[in-house]
Amino acid sequence: MTATPTYDVVGVGNAMVDILAKVPEAFLAETGVTKGIMQLIDAERAIALYAKMGPAREVSGGSAANTIAGLGQLGSRAAYVGKVKDDQLGAIFAHDIRALGVHFATPMTPRSAEGHETGRCMILVTPDGERSMNTYLGVSEHLGPDDIDEALMARTKWLYLEGYRHDGALSLAAFDKAIKACKAAGGKVALTLSDPFCVDRHRDEFRRLVREDVDLLFANEHEIVSLFQTSSLEDALDLAKTEVPMAAITVGPAGAYVINGARMVHAPAAPMARVDATGAGDMFAAGFLHGIARGRNLLTCGTMGCVAAGEAISHIGARPETDLKDLFARFGLD
Amino acid sequence: MTATPTYDVVGVGNAMVDILAKVPEAFLAETGVTKGIMQLIDAERAIALYAKMGPAREVSGGSAANTIAGLGQLGSRAAYVGKVKDDQLGAIFAHDIRALGVHFATPMTPRSAEGHETGRCMILVTPDGERSMNTYLGVSEHLGPDDIDEALMARTKWLYLEGYRHDGALSLAAFDKAIKACKAAGGKVALTLSDPFCVDRHRDEFRRLVREDVDLLFANEHEIVSLFQTSSLEDALDLAKTEVPMAAITVGPAGAYVINGARMVHAPAAPMARVDATGAGDMFAAGFLHGIARGRNLLTCGTMGCVAAGEAISHIGARPETDLKDLFARFGLD
Repeated sequence: MTATPTYDVVGVGNAMVDILAKVPEAFLAETGVTKGIMQLIDAERAIALYAKMGPAREVSGGSAANTIAGLGQLGSRAAYVGKVKDDQLGAIFAHDIRALGVHFATPMTPRSAEGHETGRCMILVTPDGERSMNTYLGVSEHLGPDDIDEALMARTKWLYLEGYRHDGALSLAAFDKAIKACKAAGGKVALTLSDPFCVDRHRDEFRRLVREDVDLLFANEHEIVSLFQTSSLEDALDLAKTEVPMAAITVGPAGAYVINGARMVHAPAAPMARVDATGAGDMFAAGFLHGIARGRNLLTCGTMGCVAAGEAISHIGARPETDLKDLFARFGLD
Repeated sequence: MTATPTYDVVGVGNAMVDILAKVPEAFLAETGVTKGIMQLIDAERAIALYAKMGPAREVSGGSAANTIAGLGQLGSRAAYVGKVKDDQLGAIFAHDIRALGVHFATPMTPRSAEGHETGRCMILVTPDGERSMNTYLGVSEHLGPDDIDEALMARTKWLYLEGYRHDGALSLAAFDKAIKACKAAGGKVALTLSDPFCVDRHRDEFRRLVREDVDLLFANEHEIVSLFQTSSLEDALDLAKTEVPMAAITVGPAGAYVINGARMVHAPAAPMARVDATGAGDMFAAGFLHGIARGRNLLTCGTMGCVAAGEAISHIGARPETDLKDLFARFGLD
């Protein structure tokens, strides 16, 4: 063990700016967008889809970045690693995360570089509050081992890895480097599975990572079932008890289950209106990690996750719009 | 008179992307921002202020552009003239206005051009719902006569001019060219005063324009008093009756007065919660012009203005978030 860690959580993921628009239900079929999931799209498709979308708003996003932004707002000491270009969207991303006190120093791809720009995610929100995500990764795809600062990884209690990052060719090497540096200094590793289809694309790699390196697994019901290929959520939860030291599994309006060895704790969902599901999982992880980094009990951690997720679904966009600290206080969470 | 006009309204103004953030009241004093008005800032100040701001959201803005966007959403035939650069913020601006069916074909400043980028306005929203605007004009400052397509100006019922545009050196020549082409084809000219301090900076020019060319004047109580330098709103309204064929004067929570020769009609404010005043005046103009272009009576036009303004103040940001057509139907306005 080294000296006291500087950070509670360091996150690694796809740095993105979200482009959010409300669309009628029929728009998804007309444009060939699959509802409720994240689809990777190329630059050509991104241009075509954007041309068909209505007016939008832009808000910094990225799954792990949203989580880290939430932790920053809660007063956790947090840092983020993800790749943007030195363009206008990159400047917006960097501003928004640093403005919450988060350390963000991943080298930007120079403005003069040919090719990809800062990544963006076109999020189509249907009247039922579901979001369908269309991600053009841009330069975020090229996060590699050179972007991992081992000294940073050795200075955090928790390393938080975004499952989506498995879609990048260099990302496994980057993850390995980050995990080794973090664990060698006594830190722990958390992983979010991100998306059932992402799990499908990289199941073997996820299984190995969970078994060998992960101390805390975040997933929703669909992702955990996809990971373990079980026929029911119950079977997947049982497997989680033996495969990973701790797991926090969200189950939509039913809240979340926190698994720790033989123990399983249920945390109820917070009573918020559902406007837009974007960022619910990301904010659950923020609330939960905030609690764990402070040594709170499992029920408190799970409830912190559910309240932060509730805030995210109560408005359009993933990043918090109310002060999460005030919200936690109102729910008696500290 | 030429053939039937193609457009109900063509707007000319500063093309902007808004960067909106909630701030505590004390932030304004700490950063030297004057509350409730629009301040022009240079690139250096823009960078310094952005660095101090919290996380923000980006939404297309620009005063006349907001009005034209509202008209597009209402189903009026609308076009917009304003200058952006071929950069990411310029692409966002162009997308958002075209997605509402608005014709927007002002030549973009090429990406390779040195110097200014697409303009932006940092809008600080305090807990009382007031907004304090800090505008870096960027390339929008350089809108000149070459950007005015006389054929477009000859094809509209109404030309709508943004007062803020008086801050640009070439804008008066651009306005003159647009007005001449519009009037020669039988079109009419509307002007919004935009801001009492903008009126202060260019009072003589505004007075001449109102007297000689303007058929419909938009202003709030502070702007009309500043224009005519009277000691009371009543005196300013009396002067308006003789100086301009028609005027629509907003008076905050008291609604609006519509002046047409000796007639003065009062339209009440719509019963919406005040969250953020950004865009209230712009949306008033959208609702009013939508009515006038359809030949509705003055009370209907004024109420359309007040309902559209009410929508704008009920959420953060200037552009409509509810369908204005549905909203007008609910208020019995068609």
